[in-house]
Amino acid sequence: MGPLPRTLEFFYDVLSPYSWLCFEVLCRYRNIWNVELQLRPTLIAGIMKDSGNKPPALLPRKGQYLKNDLNLLKQQFQVPLNFPKDFYSVILEKGSMSAMRFLTALNMEQPEMLEKVSRELWMRVWSRDEDISQPQSILTAAEKAGLSAEQARGLLEKISTAPVKSQLREVTEAACRYGAFGLPATVAHVDGQTHLLFGCDRMELLAYLLGEKWMGPVPPALNARL
Amino acid sequence: MGPLPRTLEFFYDVLSPYSWLCFEVLCRYRNIWNVELQLRPTLIAGIMKDSGNKPPALLPRKGQYLKNDLNLLKQQFQVPLNFPKDFYSVILEKGSMSAMRFLTALNMEQPEMLEKVSRELWMRVWSRDEDISQPQSILTAAEKAGLSAEQARGLLEKISTAPVKSQLREVTEAACRYGAFGLPATVAHVDGQTHLLFGCDRMELLAYLLGEKWMGPVPPALNARL
Repeated sequence: MGPLPRTLEFFYDVLSPYSWLCFEVLCRYRNIWNVELQLRPTLIAGIMKDSGNKPPALLPRKGQYLKNDLNLLKQQFQVPLNFPKDFYSVILEKGSMSAMRFLTALNMEQPEMLEKVSRELWMRVWSRDEDISQPQSILTAAEKAGLSAEQARGLLEKISTAPVKSQLREVTEAACRYGAFGLPATVAHVDGQTHLLFGCDRMELLAYLLGEKWMGPVPPALNARL
Repeated sequence: MGPLPRTLEFFYDVLSPYSWLCFEVLCRYRNIWNVELQLRPTLIAGIMKDSGNKPPALLPRKGQYLKNDLNLLKQQFQVPLNFPKDFYSVILEKGSMSAMRFLTALNMEQPEMLEKVSRELWMRVWSRDEDISQPQSILTAAEKAGLSAEQARGLLEKISTAPVKSQLREVTEAACRYGAFGLPATVAHVDGQTHLLFGCDRMELLAYLLGEKWMGPVPPALNARL
Protein backbone atom coordinates (compact mmCIF):
# COMPACT_ATOMS: atom_id res chain seq x y z
CA MET A 1 0.00 0.00 0.00
CA GLY A 2 1.35 3.41 -0.91
CA PRO A 3 1.42 6.41 1.40
CA LEU A 4 -1.79 8.26 2.20
CA PRO A 5 -2.72 10.73 -0.50
CA ARG A 6 -1.62 14.28 0.09
CA THR A 7 -4.48 16.76 -0.13
CA LEU A 8 -4.69 19.74 -2.47
CA GLU A 9 -7.51 22.22 -2.08
CA PHE A 10 -7.96 24.02 -5.36
CA PHE A 11 -9.83 27.33 -5.08
CA TYR A 12 -10.99 28.59 -8.47
CA ASP A 13 -13.49 30.70 -10.37
CA VAL A 14 -14.38 30.00 -14.01
CA LEU A 15 -13.94 33.70 -14.69
CA SER A 16 -10.21 33.27 -14.13
CA PRO A 17 -8.22 31.97 -17.13
CA TYR A 18 -5.16 31.18 -15.00
CA SER A 19 -7.49 29.06 -12.85
CA TRP A 20 -8.36 27.05 -15.94
CA LEU A 21 -4.69 26.44 -16.80
CA CYS A 22 -3.96 25.37 -13.23
CA PHE A 23 -7.10 23.20 -13.07
CA GLU A 24 -6.05 21.24 -16.15
CA VAL A 25 -2.53 20.71 -14.83
CA LEU A 26 -3.85 19.46 -11.49
CA CYS A 27 -6.37 17.16 -13.20
CA ARG A 28 -3.53 15.75 -15.32
CA TYR A 29 -1.20 15.17 -12.37
CA ARG A 30 -3.75 14.05 -9.75
CA ASN A 31 -3.20 10.35 -10.35
CA ILE A 32 0.43 10.62 -11.43
CA TRP A 33 1.29 12.21 -8.09
CA ASN A 34 -1.30 10.30 -6.07
CA VAL A 35 -2.80 13.38 -4.48
CA GLU A 36 -6.33 13.98 -3.33
CA LEU A 37 -7.57 16.94 -5.34
CA GLN A 38 -10.45 18.82 -3.75
CA LEU A 39 -12.11 21.27 -6.15
CA ARG A 40 -13.40 24.36 -4.34
CA PRO A 41 -15.65 26.67 -6.40
CA THR A 42 -14.92 30.18 -5.11
CA LEU A 43 -16.11 33.67 -5.97
CA ILE A 44 -13.18 35.72 -7.27
CA ALA A 45 -15.04 38.99 -6.70
CA GLY A 46 -15.30 38.07 -3.00
CA ILE A 47 -11.56 37.39 -2.78
CA MET A 48 -10.74 40.71 -4.42
CA LYS A 49 -13.06 42.63 -2.12
CA ASP A 50 -11.82 40.95 1.04
CA SER A 51 -8.11 41.30 0.22
CA GLY A 52 -8.29 44.79 -1.27
CA ASN A 53 -6.70 43.50 -4.48
CA LYS A 54 -7.70 44.74 -7.94
CA PRO A 55 -8.06 42.72 -11.16
CA PRO A 56 -4.65 43.00 -12.89
CA ALA A 57 -6.23 43.88 -16.24
CA LEU A 58 -7.34 47.24 -14.81
CA LEU A 59 -3.76 48.43 -15.17
CA PRO A 60 -3.47 48.90 -18.96
CA ARG A 61 0.05 47.55 -19.30
CA LYS A 62 -0.81 44.47 -17.22
CA GLY A 63 -3.92 43.97 -19.33
CA GLN A 64 -1.85 43.92 -22.49
CA TYR A 65 0.70 41.57 -20.94
CA LEU A 66 -2.04 39.22 -19.74
CA LYS A 67 -3.33 38.86 -23.27
CA ASN A 68 0.11 38.00 -24.70
CA ASP A 69 0.94 35.78 -21.74
CA LEU A 70 -2.26 33.74 -22.07
CA ASN A 71 -1.72 33.45 -25.79
CA LEU A 72 1.67 31.82 -25.18
CA LEU A 73 0.58 29.73 -22.20
CA LYS A 74 -2.38 28.23 -24.09
CA GLN A 75 0.10 26.67 -26.49
CA GLN A 76 2.50 25.53 -23.81
CA PHE A 77 -0.32 24.13 -21.60
CA GLN A 78 -2.38 22.82 -24.52
CA VAL A 79 -5.58 24.39 -23.27
CA PRO A 80 -7.84 25.94 -25.97
CA LEU A 81 -8.00 29.33 -24.33
CA ASN A 82 -9.13 32.44 -26.23
CA PHE A 83 -9.54 35.96 -24.98
CA PRO A 84 -13.19 37.14 -25.02
CA LYS A 85 -13.78 40.03 -27.41
CA ASP A 86 -15.43 42.25 -24.83
CA PHE A 87 -13.25 41.43 -21.85
CA TYR A 88 -14.53 44.24 -19.64
CA SER A 89 -18.18 43.38 -20.06
CA VAL A 90 -17.71 39.62 -19.75
CA ILE A 91 -15.22 39.54 -16.90
CA LEU A 92 -15.65 42.75 -14.97
CA GLU A 93 -19.36 43.50 -15.42
CA LYS A 94 -21.28 40.24 -15.91
CA GLY A 95 -19.07 38.28 -13.54
CA SER A 96 -19.60 34.72 -12.37
CA MET A 97 -22.00 34.79 -9.42
CA SER A 98 -24.65 32.48 -10.94
CA ALA A 99 -22.11 30.12 -12.48
CA MET A 100 -20.16 29.73 -9.24
CA ARG A 101 -23.36 29.26 -7.23
CA PHE A 102 -24.37 26.58 -9.71
CA LEU A 103 -21.02 24.81 -9.27
CA THR A 104 -21.43 25.12 -5.51
CA ALA A 105 -24.87 23.47 -5.63
CA LEU A 106 -23.45 20.81 -7.93
CA ASN A 107 -20.57 20.16 -5.55
CA MET A 108 -23.09 19.68 -2.70
CA GLU A 109 -25.21 17.18 -4.61
CA GLN A 110 -23.15 15.58 -7.39
CA PRO A 111 -19.49 16.34 -6.68
CA GLU A 112 -18.39 13.70 -9.18
CA MET A 113 -19.68 15.99 -11.97
CA LEU A 114 -17.90 19.13 -10.77
CA GLU A 115 -14.77 18.72 -12.90
CA LYS A 116 -16.69 18.22 -16.15
CA VAL A 117 -19.18 21.06 -15.63
CA SER A 118 -16.44 23.45 -14.55
CA ARG A 119 -14.54 22.64 -17.74
CA GLU A 120 -17.64 23.22 -19.89
CA LEU A 121 -18.13 26.64 -18.30
CA TRP A 122 -14.50 27.53 -19.02
CA MET A 123 -14.96 26.28 -22.59
CA ARG A 124 -17.87 28.71 -22.94
CA VAL A 125 -16.39 31.85 -21.44
CA TRP A 126 -12.66 31.38 -22.05
CA SER A 127 -12.63 29.44 -25.30
CA ARG A 128 -15.74 30.09 -27.40
CA ASP A 129 -16.57 33.55 -26.03
CA GLU A 130 -20.06 32.47 -24.95
CA ASP A 131 -22.12 33.78 -22.09
CA ILE A 132 -22.07 32.11 -18.65
CA SER A 133 -24.30 34.57 -16.80
CA GLN A 134 -27.75 33.58 -18.12
CA PRO A 135 -29.66 30.54 -16.78
CA GLN A 136 -29.85 28.96 -20.25
CA SER A 137 -26.08 29.27 -20.68
CA ILE A 138 -25.45 27.42 -17.45
CA LEU A 139 -28.01 24.72 -18.30
CA THR A 140 -26.40 24.17 -21.69
CA ALA A 141 -22.95 23.77 -20.13
CA ALA A 142 -24.29 21.38 -17.49
CA GLU A 143 -26.07 19.20 -20.03
CA LYS A 144 -23.08 19.17 -22.35
CA ALA A 145 -21.03 17.91 -19.41
CA GLY A 146 -23.43 15.02 -18.91
CA LEU A 147 -26.14 16.15 -16.51
CA SER A 148 -29.73 15.44 -17.49
CA ALA A 149 -31.94 18.44 -18.27
CA GLU A 150 -33.87 17.65 -15.12
CA GLN A 151 -30.78 17.50 -12.90
CA ALA A 152 -29.48 20.75 -14.36
CA ARG A 153 -32.78 22.57 -13.83
CA GLY A 154 -33.06 21.17 -10.30
CA LEU A 155 -29.65 22.57 -9.40
CA LEU A 156 -30.34 25.89 -11.09
CA GLU A 157 -33.44 26.32 -8.93
CA LYS A 158 -31.25 26.03 -5.85
CA ILE A 159 -28.64 28.64 -6.66
CA SER A 160 -30.46 31.39 -4.78
CA THR A 161 -31.19 29.33 -1.68
CA ALA A 162 -29.54 30.11 1.63
CA PRO A 163 -27.48 26.87 1.89
CA VAL A 164 -25.89 27.33 -1.55
CA LYS A 165 -25.20 31.04 -1.06
CA SER A 166 -23.76 30.43 2.36
CA GLN A 167 -21.60 27.52 1.14
CA LEU A 168 -20.04 29.67 -1.62
CA ARG A 169 -19.45 32.42 0.91
CA GLU A 170 -17.82 29.96 3.31
CA VAL A 171 -15.47 28.55 0.67
CA THR A 172 -14.51 32.07 -0.40
CA GLU A 173 -13.84 32.99 3.23
CA ALA A 174 -11.78 29.83 3.68
CA ALA A 175 -9.59 30.86 0.74
CA CYS A 176 -9.16 34.29 2.34
CA ARG A 177 -8.21 32.72 5.67
CA TYR A 178 -5.46 30.81 3.86
CA GLY A 179 -4.24 34.19 2.60
CA ALA A 180 -5.62 34.25 -0.95
CA PHE A 181 -5.66 37.63 -2.74
CA GLY A 182 -6.65 36.23 -6.14
CA LEU A 183 -7.35 32.97 -7.93
CA PRO A 184 -6.34 30.26 -8.57
CA ALA A 185 -5.14 29.44 -5.08
CA THR A 186 -3.86 25.93 -4.44
CA VAL A 187 -3.57 25.00 -0.79
CA ALA A 188 -1.25 22.03 -0.40
CA HIS A 189 -1.39 19.96 2.77
CA VAL A 190 1.87 18.03 2.77
CA ASP A 191 3.68 16.42 5.70
CA GLY A 192 1.63 18.30 8.27
CA GLN A 193 2.39 21.65 6.62
CA THR A 194 0.06 23.93 4.70
CA HIS A 195 1.30 25.93 1.72
CA LEU A 196 -0.64 28.51 -0.26
CA LEU A 197 0.41 28.60 -3.92
CA PHE A 198 -0.94 31.42 -6.06
CA GLY A 199 -1.44 31.25 -9.83
CA CYS A 200 -0.77 28.62 -12.45
CA ASP A 201 3.00 29.02 -12.21
CA ARG A 202 3.74 27.29 -8.92
CA MET A 203 3.01 23.77 -10.11
CA GLU A 204 6.71 22.92 -10.41
CA LEU A 205 7.14 24.21 -6.86
CA LEU A 206 4.19 22.01 -5.83
CA ALA A 207 5.97 18.99 -7.33
CA TYR A 208 9.06 19.98 -5.35
CA LEU A 209 7.04 20.19 -2.12
CA LEU A 210 5.41 16.82 -2.81
CA GLY A 211 8.75 15.24 -3.68
CA GLU A 212 7.30 14.33 -7.07
CA LYS A 213 8.62 14.77 -10.57
CA TRP A 214 7.59 17.77 -12.66
CA MET A 215 7.24 16.87 -16.31
CA GLY A 216 5.88 20.17 -17.61
CA PRO A 217 2.26 21.30 -17.93
CA VAL A 218 1.54 18.38 -20.29
CA PRO A 219 3.07 15.33 -18.62
CA PRO A 220 4.06 12.73 -21.23
CA ALA A 221 3.24 9.96 -18.77
CA LEU A 222 -0.32 11.27 -18.44
CA ASN A 223 -1.86 7.84 -18.77
CA ALA A 224 0.88 5.84 -17.11
CA ARG A 225 -0.75 5.46 -13.72
CA LEU A 226 -4.39 6.08 -14.59
CA MET B 1 28.68 25.75 -36.64
CA GLY B 2 25.47 25.95 -34.68
CA PRO B 3 22.66 28.46 -35.26
CA LEU B 4 23.14 32.07 -34.32
CA PRO B 5 22.52 32.68 -30.64
CA ARG B 6 19.06 33.88 -29.72
CA THR B 7 19.11 37.08 -27.69
CA LEU B 8 17.61 37.59 -24.25
CA GLU B 9 17.50 41.07 -22.76
CA PHE B 10 17.22 40.73 -19.01
CA PHE B 11 15.93 43.86 -17.26
CA TYR B 12 16.54 43.73 -13.51
CA ASP B 13 17.03 45.70 -10.34
CA VAL B 14 18.95 44.30 -7.36
CA LEU B 15 16.10 45.47 -5.15
CA SER B 16 13.89 42.78 -6.67
CA PRO B 17 14.28 39.27 -5.20
CA TYR B 18 12.40 37.65 -8.10
CA SER B 19 14.96 39.32 -10.39
CA TRP B 20 17.70 37.51 -8.49
CA LEU B 21 16.00 34.14 -8.91
CA CYS B 22 15.49 34.76 -12.62
CA PHE B 23 19.05 36.06 -13.05
CA GLU B 24 20.54 32.88 -11.59
CA VAL B 25 18.36 30.66 -13.78
CA LEU B 26 19.36 32.60 -16.91
CA CYS B 27 23.05 32.52 -15.96
CA ARG B 28 22.75 28.75 -15.47
CA TYR B 29 21.02 28.14 -18.80
CA ARG B 30 22.85 30.71 -20.94
CA ASN B 31 25.36 28.19 -22.31
CA ILE B 32 23.10 25.16 -22.12
CA TRP B 33 20.59 26.89 -24.40
CA ASN B 34 23.20 28.78 -26.44
CA VAL B 35 21.51 32.15 -25.98
CA GLU B 36 23.08 35.57 -25.85
CA LEU B 37 22.17 36.99 -22.47
CA GLN B 38 22.26 40.77 -22.26
CA LEU B 39 22.09 42.05 -18.69
CA ARG B 40 20.22 45.36 -18.47
CA PRO B 41 20.45 47.18 -15.12
CA THR B 42 17.10 48.96 -14.71
CA LEU B 43 15.49 51.15 -12.06
CA ILE B 44 12.42 49.39 -10.68
CA ALA B 45 11.09 52.63 -9.18
CA GLY B 46 11.05 54.09 -12.69
CA ILE B 47 9.11 51.14 -14.09
CA MET B 48 6.53 51.39 -11.32
CA LYS B 49 6.08 55.11 -11.83
CA ASP B 50 5.78 54.88 -15.59
CA SER B 51 3.34 51.95 -15.60
CA GLY B 52 1.25 53.09 -12.63
CA ASN B 53 1.92 49.76 -10.89
CA LYS B 54 2.44 49.46 -7.13
CA PRO B 55 4.91 47.24 -5.25
CA PRO B 56 2.94 44.06 -4.44
CA ALA B 57 4.07 44.06 -0.81
CA LEU B 58 1.99 47.19 -0.19
CA LEU B 59 -1.10 44.97 -0.15
CA PRO B 60 -0.74 43.22 3.23
CA ARG B 61 -1.94 39.82 2.04
CA LYS B 62 0.39 39.91 -0.96
CA GLY B 63 3.24 40.98 1.32
CA GLN B 64 2.68 37.93 3.52
CA TYR B 65 2.43 35.64 0.51
CA LEU B 66 5.61 37.06 -0.99
CA LYS B 67 7.51 36.16 2.16
CA ASN B 68 6.28 32.56 2.15
CA ASP B 69 6.69 32.26 -1.60
CA LEU B 70 10.31 33.45 -1.55
CA ASN B 71 11.04 31.15 1.37
CA LEU B 72 9.93 28.15 -0.71
CA LEU B 73 11.47 29.33 -3.99
CA LYS B 74 14.89 29.89 -2.40
CA GLN B 75 15.01 26.18 -1.64
CA GLN B 76 13.70 25.11 -5.04
CA PHE B 77 16.01 27.52 -6.92
CA GLN B 78 18.97 27.02 -4.55
CA VAL B 79 19.57 30.73 -4.15
CA PRO B 80 20.51 31.87 -0.61
CA LEU B 81 17.74 34.44 -0.37
CA ASN B 82 16.65 35.88 2.98
CA PHE B 83 14.02 38.49 3.66
CA PRO B 84 15.51 41.71 5.11
CA LYS B 85 14.32 42.43 8.65
CA ASP B 86 13.13 45.94 7.89
CA PHE B 87 11.65 45.35 4.44
CA TYR B 88 9.89 48.70 4.17
CA SER B 89 12.94 50.77 4.99
CA VAL B 90 15.34 48.73 2.83
CA ILE B 91 13.14 48.22 -0.20
CA LEU B 92 10.63 51.03 -0.25
CA GLU B 93 12.55 53.89 1.39
CA LYS B 94 16.27 53.45 0.69
CA GLY B 95 15.76 52.00 -2.77
CA SER B 96 18.45 51.18 -5.31
CA MET B 97 19.25 54.38 -7.23
CA SER B 98 22.99 54.47 -6.40
CA ALA B 99 23.44 50.72 -6.80
CA MET B 100 21.74 50.64 -10.19
CA ARG B 101 23.67 53.70 -11.38
CA PHE B 102 26.85 51.97 -10.30
CA LEU B 103 25.91 48.85 -12.28
CA THR B 104 25.07 51.07 -15.24
CA ALA B 105 28.50 52.73 -15.11
CA LEU B 106 30.10 49.29 -14.73
CA ASN B 107 28.18 48.00 -17.75
CA MET B 108 29.47 50.94 -19.80
CA GLU B 109 33.11 50.38 -18.84
CA GLN B 110 33.62 46.77 -17.72
CA PRO B 111 30.55 44.81 -18.83
CA GLU B 112 32.35 41.53 -18.19
CA MET B 113 32.14 42.28 -14.44
CA LEU B 114 28.42 43.06 -14.40
CA GLU B 115 27.23 39.58 -13.51
CA LYS B 116 29.56 39.20 -10.53
CA VAL B 117 28.96 42.66 -9.05
CA SER B 118 25.18 42.33 -9.49
CA ARG B 119 25.30 39.03 -7.60
CA GLU B 120 27.35 40.59 -4.79
CA LEU B 121 24.81 43.38 -4.41
CA TRP B 122 21.98 40.81 -4.22
CA MET B 123 24.03 38.86 -1.66
CA ARG B 124 24.20 42.01 0.43
CA VAL B 125 20.58 43.17 0.31
CA TRP B 126 18.69 39.90 -0.25
CA SER B 127 20.85 37.40 1.60
CA ARG B 128 22.84 39.00 4.41
CA ASP B 129 20.52 41.96 5.06
CA GLU B 130 23.30 44.49 4.45
CA ASP B 131 23.00 48.00 3.10
CA ILE B 132 23.39 48.77 -0.61
CA SER B 133 22.57 52.47 -0.52
CA GLN B 134 25.80 53.89 0.94
CA PRO B 135 28.96 54.43 -1.17
CA GLN B 136 31.04 52.18 1.09
CA SER B 137 28.50 49.35 0.71
CA ILE B 138 28.71 49.51 -3.06
CA LEU B 139 32.52 49.66 -3.01
CA THR B 140 32.69 46.63 -0.76
CA ALA B 141 30.41 44.63 -3.08
CA ALA B 142 32.41 45.68 -6.13
CA GLU B 143 35.73 44.73 -4.57
CA LYS B 144 34.37 41.43 -3.32
CA ALA B 145 33.32 40.70 -6.90
CA GLY B 146 36.86 41.26 -8.12
CA LEU B 147 37.21 44.95 -8.98
CA SER B 148 40.25 46.75 -7.65
CA ALA B 149 39.63 49.48 -5.08
CA GLU B 150 40.72 51.98 -7.67
CA GLN B 151 38.35 50.71 -10.36
CA ALA B 152 35.47 50.66 -7.90
CA ARG B 153 36.13 54.22 -6.71
CA GLY B 154 36.50 55.38 -10.31
CA LEU B 155 33.08 54.01 -11.21
CA LEU B 156 31.48 55.36 -8.06
CA GLU B 157 32.67 58.85 -8.96
CA LYS B 158 30.77 58.57 -12.21
CA ILE B 159 27.36 57.56 -10.93
CA SER B 160 26.08 61.12 -10.79
CA THR B 161 27.35 62.09 -14.23
CA ALA B 162 24.95 62.81 -17.06
CA PRO B 163 25.95 59.86 -19.31
CA VAL B 164 25.38 57.30 -16.53
CA LYS B 165 22.10 58.83 -15.35
CA SER B 166 20.85 59.09 -18.89
CA GLN B 167 21.89 55.51 -19.72
CA LEU B 168 19.96 54.12 -16.73
CA ARG B 169 16.96 56.22 -17.74
CA GLU B 170 17.17 54.95 -21.31
CA VAL B 171 17.31 51.31 -20.28
CA THR B 172 14.36 51.82 -17.93
CA GLU B 173 12.40 53.48 -20.73
CA ALA B 174 13.31 50.64 -23.09
CA ALA B 175 11.82 48.15 -20.62
CA CYS B 176 8.67 50.28 -20.46
CA ARG B 177 8.44 50.37 -24.24
CA TYR B 178 8.51 46.57 -24.25
CA GLY B 179 5.53 46.72 -21.87
CA ALA B 180 7.19 46.09 -18.51
CA PHE B 181 5.17 46.95 -15.38
CA GLY B 182 7.60 45.39 -12.91
CA LEU B 183 10.86 43.44 -12.77
CA PRO B 184 12.35 41.08 -13.73
CA ALA B 185 11.38 41.44 -17.36
CA THR B 186 12.99 39.09 -19.86
CA VAL B 187 12.64 40.13 -23.47
CA ALA B 188 13.25 37.17 -25.74
CA HIS B 189 14.12 37.76 -29.39
CA VAL B 190 13.45 34.42 -31.06
CA ASP B 191 12.79 33.69 -34.73
CA GLY B 192 12.11 37.32 -35.54
CA GLN B 193 9.55 37.63 -32.74
CA THR B 194 9.82 39.54 -29.49
CA HIS B 195 8.26 38.21 -26.30
CA LEU B 196 8.08 39.96 -22.95
CA LEU B 197 8.19 37.52 -20.04
CA PHE B 198 7.49 38.88 -16.58
CA GLY B 199 8.78 37.40 -13.34
CA CYS B 200 10.89 34.37 -12.50
CA ASP B 201 8.13 31.92 -13.38
CA ARG B 202 8.15 32.07 -17.17
CA MET B 203 11.49 30.33 -17.65
CA GLU B 204 9.82 27.06 -18.65
CA LEU B 205 7.78 29.04 -21.16
CA LEU B 206 11.03 30.60 -22.39
CA ALA B 207 12.46 27.11 -22.94
CA TYR B 208 9.29 26.28 -24.89
CA LEU B 209 9.69 29.38 -27.07
CA LEU B 210 13.35 28.60 -27.69
CA GLY B 211 12.59 24.97 -28.48
CA GLU B 212 14.95 24.00 -25.68
CA LYS B 213 14.61 21.58 -22.79
CA TRP B 214 13.56 22.83 -19.36
CA MET B 215 15.28 20.91 -16.60
CA GLY B 216 14.03 22.91 -13.63
CA PRO B 217 15.59 25.97 -11.99
CA VAL B 218 18.73 23.96 -11.17
CA PRO B 219 19.62 22.12 -14.39
CA PRO B 220 21.50 18.90 -13.62
CA ALA B 221 23.55 19.34 -16.79
CA LEU B 222 24.72 22.74 -15.61
CA ASN B 223 28.33 22.06 -16.52
CA ALA B 224 27.71 19.84 -19.53
CA ARG B 225 28.26 22.49 -22.20
CA LEU B 226 30.28 25.03 -20.27
